[in-house]
Amino acid sequence: MQTPIKIAVVGSGLVGSLLAIYLKRAGHTVHVYDRSPDIRKINFSGRSINLAMSNRGWRALDDLGLGDTIREIAIPMDKRAIHLVDEPLSYQPYGKEGECIYSISRGVLNRQMVTLAEAEGVEFFFESRVWDVTMADATLHTGETEKGPWDDLKYDMVFGADGAFSRIRHRMQRQNMFNYSQEFLNTGYKELNIPANPDGTHKLDKNSFHIWPRHDFMLIAMPNLDGSFTCTLFMPFEGENSFESLKDKETLEAFFAKHFPSTIEVIPNLVEDFFKNPTSTLVTMKCYPWTFEDKVALIGDAAHAIVPFYGHGMNAGFEDITILSQLMEQYGDDWKTIFQEYQKSRKPNADAIAELSYRNFMEMRSKTADAKFLLQKKIEKHFSENHPDKWLPLYSRVTFSFRPYAEALAIGDHQKAIMDEVMLMPDIESKWDTPEVEARILELLTAK
Amino acid sequence: MQTPIKIAVVGSGLVGSLLAIYLKRAGHTVHVYDRSPDIRKINFSGRSINLAMSNRGWRALDDLGLGDTIREIAIPMDKRAIHLVDEPLSYQPYGKEGECIYSISRGVLNRQMVTLAEAEGVEFFFESRVWDVTMADATLHTGETEKGPWDDLKYDMVFGADGAFSRIRHRMQRQNMFNYSQEFLNTGYKELNIPANPDGTHKLDKNSFHIWPRHDFMLIAMPNLDGSFTCTLFMPFEGENSFESLKDKETLEAFFAKHFPSTIEVIPNLVEDFFKNPTSTLVTMKCYPWTFEDKVALIGDAAHAIVPFYGHGMNAGFEDITILSQLMEQYGDDWKTIFQEYQKSRKPNADAIAELSYRNFMEMRSKTADAKFLLQKKIEKHFSENHPDKWLPLYSRVTFSFRPYAEALAIGDHQKAIMDEVMLMPDIESKWDTPEVEARILELLTAK
Repeated sequence: MQTPIKIAVVGSGLVGSLLAIYLKRAGHTVHVYDRSPDIRKINFSGRSINLAMSNRGWRALDDLGLGDTIREIAIPMDKRAIHLVDEPLSYQPYGKEGECIYSISRGVLNRQMVTLAEAEGVEFFFESRVWDVTMADATLHTGETEKGPWDDLKYDMVFGADGAFSRIRHRMQRQNMFNYSQEFLNTGYKELNIPANPDGTHKLDKNSFHIWPRHDFMLIAMPNLDGSFTCTLFMPFEGENSFESLKDKETLEAFFAKHFPSTIEVIPNLVEDFFKNPTSTLVTMKCYPWTFEDKVALIGDAAHAIVPFYGHGMNAGFEDITILSQLMEQYGDDWKTIFQEYQKSRKPNADAIAELSYRNFMEMRSKTADAKFLLQKKIEKHFSENHPDKWLPLYSRVTFSFRPYAEALAIGDHQKAIMDEVMLMPDIESKWDTPEVEARILELLTAK
Repeated sequence: MQTPIKIAVVGSGLVGSLLAIYLKRAGHTVHVYDRSPDIRKINFSGRSINLAMSNRGWRALDDLGLGDTIREIAIPMDKRAIHLVDEPLSYQPYGKEGECIYSISRGVLNRQMVTLAEAEGVEFFFESRVWDVTMADATLHTGETEKGPWDDLKYDMVFGADGAFSRIRHRMQRQNMFNYSQEFLNTGYKELNIPANPDGTHKLDKNSFHIWPRHDFMLIAMPNLDGSFTCTLFMPFEGENSFESLKDKETLEAFFAKHFPSTIEVIPNLVEDFFKNPTSTLVTMKCYPWTFEDKVALIGDAAHAIVPFYGHGMNAGFEDITILSQLMEQYGDDWKTIFQEYQKSRKPNADAIAELSYRNFMEMRSKTADAKFLLQKKIEKHFSENHPDKWLPLYSRVTFSFRPYAEALAIGDHQKAIMDEVMLMPDIESKWDTPEVEARILELLTAK
């Protein structure tokens, strides 16, 4: 059990709210600051990608007994639905029978998390702008404007859960020896919408993650409780097929008619939404260290912002909390050790999921449309079913296991080298499920 | 010829001062701001590594007719002098007969550059703290403190030549889609000193770059005009042989007696200097874009800070100016195009010299002590002398040519692959200068 202290969490997003509950349960006084208004009192903006909650996320909720409450607002998706032009719809199961990821609206979940945290006794201070932090004594500086005057709010400890553009990290960044990188993709995204049928049912299969892969760009759709789908169009900012090139109603409609004909009927407000909703950017942010003595720690996107193509931004942030909580149990009041072990344990895994997410960008937008790739997945799945102890596919290790992300990346690279060999076998298309292929994989697995 | 405009240069270092002269010669009004006092009026601090001016640097000075003035304060070094424990001193020539790099004290050069710029009519504003810039209208914001009040100084254009921790870049960094990284080495450095003999002569060979390579750490010494050498000790911050481990006089003296016995007599103030001089950090900083419309541009370390192990920080910064100046001639008043072409041309080369500098860190501290590596260099040199049209060694391409750094990196990688093959030849030690080896290199060169 820890000695109760006074902790400030900056950021009332998903990670900030959940962390606050964990800290409160551990006996501490917890205040959460956010520059935005209470998310329960505003319209959630049209620039969000739906969340795909998977096992790591659920564990952090279930450990507190909150999983079931959240499952009520989640829709299971057990497969990808692949939409190609002039071809029938095809499906790729994500994992084994019963393994799913869950579509949740970010806004809906965030409202729920804030309410749950308040019920636990966490205090929220909305529209409170934290401009800076004095790290040595965990003091927040808030005020109307960046140039002051500021109020000084003294705590025992500060968590920066304030996202990819964290102010808390901004202060840490000014320390000597602080490693930092931010790198933007040349691809951006825009939210679109597939409304529900008049009877409230979904226009597409509701238990699928829908994807229209088109190589340089792609459209995805994830189900909502109200029968609608939140769609996201990922596309380069500039070039032939780009946001820049879709300048008016005519170009936009022609583009969708050509590349996404199956969406014409289900996205009625295409033109209005496209030109109303902002085009957002995608960034990978890495930094180190994440902590300062026993005073300040970064968590979630503030420590490791990743691109959304593996659906693991929130899951990785929630896993930060799980690990931190385990270390709190282990080391009690020795917060210096807790923070050291926390950052040492999480940093390689954060780097690994960043890399995996970036690679999945390539996979989703082009490879999911590739017959050879689909065959490879089928062979892996077949082998894995016969030898579950010898082969856990990369996607499953990342999404349905609790194995470290860094391990998933390393084993995934090894598996890829093996599959590259297997795909070179003559007539692989016809003999993919034969003992010969199985024997070859076993041989390659033991070769190293 | 360009239409005269009013330009602010932030930073009165080497790149800022030289850029100011170029802009003044082009007919513009040029004001240089620096947060520090006039370098001519203060003692230059004990945290500098001597500069190694090479061809790219000289070109930028010679194009203005200023090279000869600066050559008077420079000492040519045509070779590395390698100091190993219990072995005789050995020498590695840097290039062909007559090819040298030049040792210059940073402080001495900077003072000279400011004086030269003033003589051209550039105005300097020292102890003027630029806190921010409004990019859209090229307005600098200066004041006593970061929190104001500030003066607004309106220009037509602003150059950020304010080094690795640039305030101008800090503003650009807050734009969307700004890529940025800073990465610190775990190795730091400390300045030491070899004083002149009583008669003003040098205690070691004055036309050598002296190096004591010890794998994880190394000492270097570069000559000054007054008979002294500026030494730099590069060493990890933590670990067995580290700055952290050298805590007191006794440990320090024992360390030097063991690892640098030949320096005992020539560094009389070791203990005093070691504990007085700061331990400095080494950072690689990359970013993009470097320019904002036709209003703001970064140059030198502000755009691309590199580690010092190739001796090219200043040379690369001066080459930025050469390229910018060529583009000013080419595009006249079309500053938007000038800035676009400038950043497009320089970015890949800045990335390349960053990579080469990092690699040279490995080479200098360990490989220069390795017999195999020295043999490889000898083979390369031999082949290059017989086939100057077919083989320009990497170091020479970087240091004695004006070929782009990116080209040097690419060709250097190809040469390395060839030499790796050559070094595998049986009995290479005894037959390194035979026609057989020559034929093998020619064969490998044409293989691709």
